[in-house]
Amino acid sequence: MTAQTRADGSLRHLLTLEGLSSRELTQLLDRAQEYVRPPGARAPVSRALAGVTVANLFTEPSTRTRVSFELAAKRLGAEVVNLELQLSSRVKGESMLDTIFTLEALHVDAFVIRDAEAGVPGLVAAHVAPHVSVLSAGEGSAAHPTQGLLDALTIRQRKHRFDGLVVAIVGDIRHSRVARSACHALTTLGVAELRVVGPASLLPGDDEFRGCVRHTDIEAGLRDADVVMMLRIQRERMEGEAQLDGAAYFDSFGLTAARLRLAKPDAIILHPQPMNRGVEIASDVADGPQSAIRDQVRNGVAVRMAVLATVVRTGDST
Amino acid sequence: MTAQTRADGSLRHLLTLEGLSSRELTQLLDRAQEYVRPPGARAPVSRALAGVTVANLFTEPSTRTRVSFELAAKRLGAEVVNLELQLSSRVKGESMLDTIFTLEALHVDAFVIRDAEAGVPGLVAAHVAPHVSVLSAGEGSAAHPTQGLLDALTIRQRKHRFDGLVVAIVGDIRHSRVARSACHALTTLGVAELRVVGPASLLPGDDEFRGCVRHTDIEAGLRDADVVMMLRIQRERMEGEAQLDGAAYFDSFGLTAARLRLAKPDAIILHPQPMNRGVEIASDVADGPQSAIRDQVRNGVAVRMAVLATVVRTGDST
Amino acid sequence: MTAQTRADGSLRHLLTLEGLSSRELTQLLDRAQEYVRPPGARAPVSRALAGVTVANLFTEPSTRTRVSFELAAKRLGAEVVNLELQLSSRVKGESMLDTIFTLEALHVDAFVIRDAEAGVPGLVAAHVAPHVSVLSAGEGSAAHPTQGLLDALTIRQRKHRFDGLVVAIVGDIRHSRVARSACHALTTLGVAELRVVGPASLLPGDDEFRGCVRHTDIEAGLRDADVVMMLRIQRERMEGEAQLDGAAYFDSFGLTAARLRLAKPDAIILHPQPMNRGVEIASDVADGPQSAIRDQVRNGVAVRMAVLATVVRTGDST
Repeated sequence: MTAQTRADGSLRHLLTLEGLSSRELTQLLDRAQEYVRPPGARAPVSRALAGVTVANLFTEPSTRTRVSFELAAKRLGAEVVNLELQLSSRVKGESMLDTIFTLEALHVDAFVIRDAEAGVPGLVAAHVAPHVSVLSAGEGSAAHPTQGLLDALTIRQRKHRFDGLVVAIVGDIRHSRVARSACHALTTLGVAELRVVGPASLLPGDDEFRGCVRHTDIEAGLRDADVVMMLRIQRERMEGEAQLDGAAYFDSFGLTAARLRLAKPDAIILHPQPMNRGVEIASDVADGPQSAIRDQVRNGVAVRMAVLATVVRTGDST
Repeated sequence: MTAQTRADGSLRHLLTLEGLSSRELTQLLDRAQEYVRPPGARAPVSRALAGVTVANLFTEPSTRTRVSFELAAKRLGAEVVNLELQLSSRVKGESMLDTIFTLEALHVDAFVIRDAEAGVPGLVAAHVAPHVSVLSAGEGSAAHPTQGLLDALTIRQRKHRFDGLVVAIVGDIRHSRVARSACHALTTLGVAELRVVGPASLLPGDDEFRGCVRHTDIEAGLRDADVVMMLRIQRERMEGEAQLDGAAYFDSFGLTAARLRLAKPDAIILHPQPMNRGVEIASDVADGPQSAIRDQVRNGVAVRMAVLATVVRTGDST
Repeated sequence: MTAQTRADGSLRHLLTLEGLSSRELTQLLDRAQEYVRPPGARAPVSRALAGVTVANLFTEPSTRTRVSFELAAKRLGAEVVNLELQLSSRVKGESMLDTIFTLEALHVDAFVIRDAEAGVPGLVAAHVAPHVSVLSAGEGSAAHPTQGLLDALTIRQRKHRFDGLVVAIVGDIRHSRVARSACHALTTLGVAELRVVGPASLLPGDDEFRGCVRHTDIEAGLRDADVVMMLRIQRERMEGEAQLDGAAYFDSFGLTAARLRLAKPDAIILHPQPMNRGVEIASDVADGPQSAIRDQVRNGVAVRMAVLATVVRTGDST
């Protein structure tokens, strides 16, 4: 794996939350919190990255995560270019790197990369020049580090602590980069119990999510939870599995008001979006008082500002 | 219909020109006029919306109207994000609103929405938080309010009044959001006579365009007009009608130099563009001295600046 | 051909390097050099074009040249709009010009146009208003003037002169706008010998590249060269030719380390990118110490800044 830190220990890339210390995670959350604004307030504005160029490389350009990163960079004063690129190894690796080197020679200071295939952000990070940073915006089913940070920030805002918390992640754990990054963050930050809940075929292999409690019964999985993180059911990730029937899935694993009552009375609900209402979550629950889903979005742009402001070196401007 | 105004009577959204008072329309035109620059001059620049974020949601991204809104927002100092989104009810309404709520949580202050389906801008306006504004950039065949304003502004610049004017709108009135918004604006602003001119199958139902004079003969429709507004023939809007033959349409309803002589000698010609030259309008007329078509474009960016500067609340910045 | 200069002799458009004097080329190179920054440095930033609007009109939006022009304009403080447009005569000429006039009326000050078809940038330049500039970003196989400038700048940085140099351009000369623009620049700047090297079917007609030495044998073509410019093999340009076999081409005309040893020991290698590694160039050569390919990219954004800053009139701001 590519090292994410510089020789002086500072964060250079953000490819995964795995291996970050509790102190490093907390510093990122603290910095993000400074960028959080209440609903209805104007967005935070800074010139911290004036003169910096950020390239968004997304295989699908019209995603909300792309907009979140774009606004994060612009609100720090950076220039942003958006490219729709086929970065995966379906294209020959050297061609992909030629594209990266070209952008680097255009004085791009940070790459934000989303790819359906695992390995691409790390490959790029291993080859760029020392002053360039790489941020993963979602890497196959492997990692989605800014999502993990925004999940942690949302929990911290609502629960004011991690220790003692019971967190249940429900859904297609096996294919979920969201679950992996949440697991890395929350384990390090010291939650009391992390549960992964889903049908047996969608639970991860035994070599992953060590220390997590596995449940194939959602009622057992939700009982006395402080945080319920519902995952999006992504049929496209489940090739080789029986095609899921939405209604049947909802019967077995959908989060309903009745099931939610099994969790703590002040449990909060997270979802990475976009939601399949009526598949993994009932609409009244998604929109109900325990839902922190819109907070997650608001925290997302704050987290991305914090990460960009942390990794990009601004002292070497000429 | 969604209310467009706040409790204090100020304009919050712009979904339609229907119901706006002559005073409200005149204030918008006055403000737009301040942003008008002569051909060849540098664009107007302002910081009135610094710190504001505007999201352009267009189902087709490469339209001139999108660019006009994008430049209007940028020239006021706003950040702009462009998204190509399928917003219509073909997608489940709740999914569409989830997308809107996500963008709202990213501190988007104003949505500019174009959709082929009527109802979408109003649906969004009915659900966004109080500090968020929605501008229609063209809604099915129902409304295109900034187009109506730029038409009115262009007429005012050339004719210096509305009272006493005879305005002929020619073409596919039935399917035209441009005609509807022009009708709303010009009727309220007090033109003497508004005519709708076209083949019987393309004239509107009797419940619409009340007070307008209907003509199926273009010569009669043009006689002594001060303003001739030609509409674009949009075959894609005419499902269920006989497929139009361009040359035959031009014979019956195309604006030629000979026909233009039926209007007042100083009559001006408007067209919302893009033009089908040789179908609804002859090239020499489109490019002739009576054409105000390029003025319309220039006025379009000024009108959009005025509308954005009017609806977006800038006092609540934090 | 459309005149590129204003009545006072200043450069207004950049459609081709043909006809520019050595002094004009040198002034552009000098200005570009001011914008060059070393690898790893922050990009140059200027407010020279604050208030100016640049429209990028590309038929394919996700190209590196588009990003290079976009960053060049933004780093001068200009607003940039990107449009994916079908500008060629496949669309009726008048419709294309209507689009241009619309953008012009939106106070676009400069158009950057790439089109697969020759003639489009010149047609636009012939019709826009006097204050508007047109820059070609690649026109069919006819011209790619900013590429020619960046090639010349790269050579000047490495060789500190043009006189006395032997330059070999290798590949599909016949279909190459890169070769044509390089030929125009380097001939005017006074290189000693310009060679075009390739299979007979890909060499240009006798009425072009006058004064160049033609070689169908790559070894002869490379001998004692100071600069080796490899062209991209573009199969899509070669309709009517036998479909090229990549491996066979590499055998006959690919630049290998062994062949490179025929050139001068300090010869430099250029390539316009993207590279077909293993077709026109071996990977070890592309990444070797004699390669100046990344310098070309870095020089590309500097050249585009220099051209924009030169052609756009900034005195008439209002």
